[in-house]
Amino acid sequence: MLGLMQDWPLVCHKILDHAATYHGGREVVSRSIEGPLHRTNYAEVRVRALKLAKRLEMDGVKLGDRVATMAWNTWRHLESWYGILGLGAVYHTLNPRLFPEQIAWIMNDAEDSLLFVDLTFVKLIEAIAPKVPSLRRVIILTDDAHMPETSLPGAVSYETYLAEADDDFAWAEFDERTAAGMCYTSGTTGDPKGVVYSHRSNVLHAMTAVQPDMLNLSSHDRLMPVVPLFHANGWSTAFSCPMAGASMIMPGAGMDGESIYQMLTRERVTITAAVPTVWLMLLQRMEKEGGDLPDLERVVIGGAACPRAITRAFQDVYGVKVMHAWGMTEMSPLGTVCSIKPEYDDLEGDAKLDLLSKQGHPPFTVEMKVTDDENRELPWDGKTFGKLKVRGPAVSASYYKGRGADQFDAEGWFDTGDVAHMDAHGYMQITDRSKDVIKSGGEWISSIEIENLAVGHADVAEAAVIGVAHPKWSERPLLVVVVKEGRTPLKSDILGFLDGKIAKWWMPDDVVFVAEIPHTATGKIQKMSLREQLKDYVLPDG
Amino acid sequence: MLGLMQDWPLVCHKILDHAATYHGGREVVSRSIEGPLHRTNYAEVRVRALKLAKRLEMDGVKLGDRVATMAWNTWRHLESWYGILGLGAVYHTLNPRLFPEQIAWIMNDAEDSLLFVDLTFVKLIEAIAPKVPSLRRVIILTDDAHMPETSLPGAVSYETYLAEADDDFAWAEFDERTAAGMCYTSGTTGDPKGVVYSHRSNVLHAMTAVQPDMLNLSSHDRLMPVVPLFHANGWSTAFSCPMAGASMIMPGAGMDGESIYQMLTRERVTITAAVPTVWLMLLQRMEKEGGDLPDLERVVIGGAACPRAITRAFQDVYGVKVMHAWGMTEMSPLGTVCSIKPEYDDLEGDAKLDLLSKQGHPPFTVEMKVTDDENRELPWDGKTFGKLKVRGPAVSASYYKGRGADQFDAEGWFDTGDVAHMDAHGYMQITDRSKDVIKSGGEWISSIEIENLAVGHADVAEAAVIGVAHPKWSERPLLVVVVKEGRTPLKSDILGFLDGKIAKWWMPDDVVFVAEIPHTATGKIQKMSLREQLKDYVLPDG
Ligand SMILES: Nc1ncnc2c1ncn2[C@@H]1O[C@H](COP(=O)(O)OP(=O)(O)OP(=O)(O)O)[C@@H](O)[C@H]1O
Ligand SMILES: Nc1ncnc2c1ncn2[C@@H]1O[C@H](COP(=O)(O)OP(=O)(O)OP(=O)(O)O)[C@@H](O)[C@H]1O
Ligand SMILES: [Mg+2]
Ligand SMILES: [Mg+2]
Repeated sequence: MLGLMQDWPLVCHKILDHAATYHGGREVVSRSIEGPLHRTNYAEVRVRALKLAKRLEMDGVKLGDRVATMAWNTWRHLESWYGILGLGAVYHTLNPRLFPEQIAWIMNDAEDSLLFVDLTFVKLIEAIAPKVPSLRRVIILTDDAHMPETSLPGAVSYETYLAEADDDFAWAEFDERTAAGMCYTSGTTGDPKGVVYSHRSNVLHAMTAVQPDMLNLSSHDRLMPVVPLFHANGWSTAFSCPMAGASMIMPGAGMDGESIYQMLTRERVTITAAVPTVWLMLLQRMEKEGGDLPDLERVVIGGAACPRAITRAFQDVYGVKVMHAWGMTEMSPLGTVCSIKPEYDDLEGDAKLDLLSKQGHPPFTVEMKVTDDENRELPWDGKTFGKLKVRGPAVSASYYKGRGADQFDAEGWFDTGDVAHMDAHGYMQITDRSKDVIKSGGEWISSIEIENLAVGHADVAEAAVIGVAHPKWSERPLLVVVVKEGRTPLKSDILGFLDGKIAKWWMPDDVVFVAEIPHTATGKIQKMSLREQLKDYVLPDG
Repeated sequence: MLGLMQDWPLVCHKILDHAATYHGGREVVSRSIEGPLHRTNYAEVRVRALKLAKRLEMDGVKLGDRVATMAWNTWRHLESWYGILGLGAVYHTLNPRLFPEQIAWIMNDAEDSLLFVDLTFVKLIEAIAPKVPSLRRVIILTDDAHMPETSLPGAVSYETYLAEADDDFAWAEFDERTAAGMCYTSGTTGDPKGVVYSHRSNVLHAMTAVQPDMLNLSSHDRLMPVVPLFHANGWSTAFSCPMAGASMIMPGAGMDGESIYQMLTRERVTITAAVPTVWLMLLQRMEKEGGDLPDLERVVIGGAACPRAITRAFQDVYGVKVMHAWGMTEMSPLGTVCSIKPEYDDLEGDAKLDLLSKQGHPPFTVEMKVTDDENRELPWDGKTFGKLKVRGPAVSASYYKGRGADQFDAEGWFDTGDVAHMDAHGYMQITDRSKDVIKSGGEWISSIEIENLAVGHADVAEAAVIGVAHPKWSERPLLVVVVKEGRTPLKSDILGFLDGKIAKWWMPDDVVFVAEIPHTATGKIQKMSLREQLKDYVLPDG
């Protein structure tokens, strides 16, 4: 017996319809690529997205076609997403920080036919376009006044392109499982893999993201996604904000501490989201120049483990609540948020910081388990770590073209590649990546935990722990450190600082000072390269 | 091109799995039918629901079978729902306040095979059971110690029934569109019609209900559903609370002001929900006996228009936020909640009360429009009223057995039978039921607005406005009033009180004092009966 309820497909453009109807005047404020601030709202964004969908259709774009974007967070990029997906085509975000060869490889893999690109990246794309035969047209996200000279195929300014269509258009109709978007993983552990979101997964994901114990997004919020739309599905902000009727404050290309501070304060941002590196830059800027954050209520920090020093500064110095979050491109991306459940309401001081340094607990629709190598479930005791596996309607069932099939098992569990433990109340903490785990004498050591402690030392700018071959223990941890400008700590200072904070046998065997630690295009430490770089290093007793 | 995300069906029992895993210790506190308070939690509720599902399967219950419940809100009723739906059978809630013949008719219409019933209703069901041939077994929601003598077929105590199965059981697997529950409408405008919820609709509905601008449910909430589970799908609390990890405080049979006050305060309830009548009883009790509501943050009021006097008392006297909500059995049931959007943040005093007396705005997934008789959309100007039509994944596509087909149109819109206007920010206000609309000289008069004003008069206990035939205007409003004990207002007092508050031509032509106004089984004014009762009344100038 089936229910007798309506077949109302979960499609992304209905989110924008809702925003335009019930929160039509709510602002979308952007720092434009051309310079000035630009103000619009959901009602206008929807009209322009409809025009764009019509224009794309006139251009021969069809259901399932991949249309790429390489752009900062602005209203035009937002409109592009909805224009593309509202036609049943697939927005495919490109990360401009990848190597040009990687970008070309990804575009060819996805067979992108059109590309929306910011002025910033025109030169970059001019070098890539000739290597992407499927690319037949490039729309530059600007107006005619700012159009550059360019060799790009079919180049046209976004505003002119839009003006060639009216808004007398109805969103296309299709099954909710239709592909809506595409994003490749960051490539921290190897080559990026293509993830294909459906309309359904994006909608369900946004419906969980806005919930009170997750981002708690309401129509009173003004959210600034500093995380770019090209990182892990833009952390869903393009869907969760209009769904909740929250204003969006778009930082454009201004990703430095000063620009972010200006946008946060001038635009009275209440909630913002980015990777730890961004917040480090903001905090450094504020430490130097002063200032406060009177409107900002909460900051979502994810993409990499959030060092305690950041949490402490936001909380104690600026009165901002830190929400540590964990996600993956493959999870749309939100997996967990570290909001405080009643069981932990009474925590204070260090105990509270301990909790907030966990990655948090999942919303309804995300299932998790932690297993050993034989796929046996491990206890939720807050210390036994193993492979973290997940399931849910916004979790990948496979990668594009069937790559990485071994990460998916028969019961539908996806192996995240993260190593984690869970506590009795379902708080998850990542201790490592599977590929970065250090195995000393058969036991695992958490590199992330040591790194997070090490960056708490006043002289340390960045820290990474990698495993180095050891004759007796098979592997031992090595601490690699970038020191802050003008500081000259001794190895013993740093190790002494760790003493008592970690188990004796976790203590790194040595410290190596380097000028720079290699990063991925999303700003994460690239341990593969670091291990490669230090492959000739030999431990003191090795 | 389809997305490559997991096929993770939206089924109701996954909500309980989530609650048991991530909010397992969160309390479910009930005033038991036997008397004492009973405390359990989501982890235990889940184990018992699994046992129940297994026990039902042993009893031959199959996918799609209708299993009825006639019970107050207790942990056992909650377990019954999940035990039934977790097997793929259909919980069918019966309203014990209907006439026995209506109950028998409904049970036969649904072909209920089993029934879970509270001790309170054993006698009632004994009279009905012989008329329901499909009913083969009755489980009485108590333990052996409290089992009554009964002639009911296969009668067994719930605890004994449960004990006959272990919890080694996996939830059944089926499509998310499978029927999960069944509820008949209240029968205000005619015979009750069967609504069949799917797993998908219940899950999506709960995902919207918990959102910040809706009920804003979090793991810190302790929600008391005073609204019975047999009213309009229990207002979704059986799903939204475990989804959010909110505690449930179940009032059992204690629906009087004193019992409710005791539960609210002793169990530190933060949010509660019921029809206006319940809140009138509570407020009367508090006015008489004193007391305050220190933990209660918000009260959800729906099912009928909420008189301003109630809103004012909660807000000004007890510091509790009123959330006026509108819903229908056919909408799972939530349609709108009157939370305050930024546009209205600055309202105060009467202007704020005006806003809060609206039924509110819908969440994402509820589409609304207001049309005239020719299905032309009317402007959203806050005054032009017409037929309210809705669409969404948790809105009925049809009634059971195809009844009432004229309420559904080809584009999927469901005619709610309510008459309403919308304002520019999407706030909806109900002015009438289509069947109760008063048409004076071709123009519509809102009976609900006049009623809500009239009950603001100090001597008025209850008020209803109906249309009465008029030679010149075709229909004119008549105000029917029940006065408070010991009061003897004059007609002119009451009309004078309305003067200046409504348009001159809305002023009722007369006032009739009656001892009682007829109500439906859900406590709503039954205007059909009232018109019948006053059919011989003639207007002063009629
Ligand atoms: N709060 C966090 N704490 C620790 N690690 C995090 C956190 N959030 C995300 N991560 C890490 O980021 C990963 C997801 O990142 P993303 O999807 O951008 O690609 P990637 O895993 O870095 O790259 P690739 O999968 O191509 O190797 C997670 O699997 C996890 O390792
Ligand atoms: N906040 C509210 N203000 C005014 N009316 C409301 C409110 N909430 C619900 N209602 C009324 O209740 C109706 C839904 O009630 P329900 O589904 O219990 O059955 P019913 O409409 O009373 O009965 P039937 O459909 O069988 O005639 C709505 O259509 C509306 O008329
Ligand atoms: Mg990865
Ligand atoms: Mg009705």
